[in-house]
Amino acid sequence: MGFDTSTLRFDEQGLIPAIAQDAGTGEVLMMAWMNADAVAKTLESGRVTYWSRSRQAFWVKGESSGHSQALVDFRVDCDRDCLLVVVNQTGPACHTSRRSCFYTAVREGGEVELMTPVAD
Amino acid sequence: MGFDTSTLRFDEQGLIPAIAQDAGTGEVLMMAWMNADAVAKTLESGRVTYWSRSRQAFWVKGESSGHSQALVDFRVDCDRDCLLVVVNQTGPACHTSRRSCFYTAVREGGEVELMTPVAD
Repeated sequence: MGFDTSTLRFDEQGLIPAIAQDAGTGEVLMMAWMNADAVAKTLESGRVTYWSRSRQAFWVKGESSGHSQALVDFRVDCDRDCLLVVVNQTGPACHTSRRSCFYTAVREGGEVELMTPVAD
Repeated sequence: MGFDTSTLRFDEQGLIPAIAQDAGTGEVLMMAWMNADAVAKTLESGRVTYWSRSRQAFWVKGESSGHSQALVDFRVDCDRDCLLVVVNQTGPACHTSRRSCFYTAVREGGEVELMTPVAD
């Protein structure tokens, strides 16, 4: 039996935010959006699939870059309006070639870069 | 010098998603929203402050429950349209008295509860 995606609360654009967390390190890697079909595809395939708002198309993470996310656990929050996907990340998660998209810290009013791009 | 919140990308409602992560355990605790003033308040006060969409008011996390979030690090993602606040969480983060809002896993089409409410 498949998961009933209609039990989730999507926004007015039919999207739900999905946070990706590294299964090994616990690092928060990125946040992107899914629609109901992307949720179903992710659960069925075990490959994390987002909905690209800019391209208005499915975004199978890593399909072009090779930096895919294998689903380890799929979690729903208390309000059912946010998802947490625990993943095994291949290569960097960020399109800037950093391990995580959250590589900039705001400290004492200035910005500090916490990670440098990794060689592929 | 304060951080210039206008460098962030807010949505059409003037909001940006903020993921809260436990500084000690790395656990993802919750996701909520901030507007520019909530970002500024969080950075100035060191107490994580969201914008409540339902109440249309500032939501100083823990102000009524005592389950506050002390800011440890404030991070911005590559697109500057999502925040990660690393926090010291007092008590449970979730309004259901669970440590994290992401206490439900979807496994084999069914749902599994990963955490029970904690005594206060």
